[in-house]
Amino acid sequence: MNIAIVGLGVIGGSFAMGLQAAGYKNVYGIDVNEATLLTAEKKGMIKKGFLDAKDILQGMDVIMLSLYPSQIAPFVEQYKNDLKDGVILTDVTGVKTAIIKQVAEILPATADFVFAHPMRGSEKKGIDGADHTRFIGANALLTPIPANKEASLKIIEKLYKEIGFTQVTRVTPEKHDEQIAYVSQLMHALSVAVVNSTQASEETLTFAGNSFQELTRIADINAELWSELFLNNRTALLESIEQFEVELNALKHTLEENDEEELKIIFSRATRKRREWY
Amino acid sequence: MNIAIVGLGVIGGSFAMGLQAAGYKNVYGIDVNEATLLTAEKKGMIKKGFLDAKDILQGMDVIMLSLYPSQIAPFVEQYKNDLKDGVILTDVTGVKTAIIKQVAEILPATADFVFAHPMRGSEKKGIDGADHTRFIGANALLTPIPANKEASLKIIEKLYKEIGFTQVTRVTPEKHDEQIAYVSQLMHALSVAVVNSTQASEETLTFAGNSFQELTRIADINAELWSELFLNNRTALLESIEQFEVELNALKHTLEENDEEELKIIFSRATRKRREWY
Repeated sequence: MNIAIVGLGVIGGSFAMGLQAAGYKNVYGIDVNEATLLTAEKKGMIKKGFLDAKDILQGMDVIMLSLYPSQIAPFVEQYKNDLKDGVILTDVTGVKTAIIKQVAEILPATADFVFAHPMRGSEKKGIDGADHTRFIGANALLTPIPANKEASLKIIEKLYKEIGFTQVTRVTPEKHDEQIAYVSQLMHALSVAVVNSTQASEETLTFAGNSFQELTRIADINAELWSELFLNNRTALLESIEQFEVELNALKHTLEENDEEELKIIFSRATRKRREWY
Repeated sequence: MNIAIVGLGVIGGSFAMGLQAAGYKNVYGIDVNEATLLTAEKKGMIKKGFLDAKDILQGMDVIMLSLYPSQIAPFVEQYKNDLKDGVILTDVTGVKTAIIKQVAEILPATADFVFAHPMRGSEKKGIDGADHTRFIGANALLTPIPANKEASLKIIEKLYKEIGFTQVTRVTPEKHDEQIAYVSQLMHALSVAVVNSTQASEETLTFAGNSFQELTRIADINAELWSELFLNNRTALLESIEQFEVELNALKHTLEENDEEELKIIFSRATRKRREWY
């Protein structure tokens, strides 16, 4: 099986390493940066690198687009005549309905696009941060569309499992976006707002403990990528923020009213729910 | 030096262990739970345990109150005639101005109370969770009041350093409460509101990654203790929540307006500030 990975950043590079480690010999890399391709070749992450996708795409059975959300549809548009019949494309982006809509309008009937989301990001950027062990034990989501062939979904699921993902779950694109808005994007929004608060100062670390360090970790954020992720999912994210605000307001109300009993009920509810998860 | 620790929970127990490890031989324990005292004696954490503080207080040079905020002033009130002249009392609570105000009204002139806050909590409860190594490398805050003797402050600082605290910083009680509202209490409020959101479900873990697990860790919260901490500092905490909301609203506004440039500016500001800290 010939596999091309388009974009050898921290995620694409990690997939290349993982595929090599799983025994795939024919993994090719496509990137706009020649130094990245040389590094990937030298480290044995890919069999060969290409600056121009046209030079390699026609021989590929699987093409993984490890690109930013805004680059997915333009890539398909640009290379839709360079694809092998029966090719499977797949992506790694953290938003789905918006991307699916864009791609559906331009994808040739001879290609199948399996939309996927490996649930293990990184604060690192670039090929030097690539490390396939990050995927071991991680979860991934597939968001099948009616046009997908079951065989294509199975092939992508198998690749993920072979790389080390524990659970690969199929969900609808809408459910994906709604839940990702809550479990991931909302966390990043809160972390960013905490760090940007006017209360932050040079003295903050004198007072800060574990929880502040943990909660603000993801405020160190890739602005280019996350602005795309947020804006491509802005309806769901706004809904998540509003649901969160309902609970924050309930908590504020107990402070304003000095209502110890209600505050304890709120804390106990959170404790019970948290313990059901972890 | 004779030291009594009142309340051998996870924090008091850890201090007892730390003092023993630092070479203090005359560390006594006071607790309402006889089994706790027996455990502490058996583990060598204290020289001897007492159910009734009256039996031991008069011989003590330092008394550390490892109690809930609401128990501090009542303890001083109950035992103010059982204290040795020149005794140093100290606490470990996470709020200061409210406690200081309560204690100032009743403390005998012959006693000096050094208000302190070891900055390393625990999700655990009770003596079985005690572990003095938690304090190694941690920070602590002292909030001196005009009545404090410099010698008393130095003695408490020395004890903390000997137990393993790296930095013991003196700040005003007002500054303490304002900053703790931000770096600690706000984090707990956000975490609790996230977990209590109606978007939380049994399926949540299918979608959740590292950031959700990290950010919700502190939603597993001791309701008795934290309701006291929040309500004793509710003015400062409400102010912190409101400052946070200003930033969250700015972020929401970029989503509503689909304003990518402004969203990137917000992310870049957060990234820059986070990197200055860690």
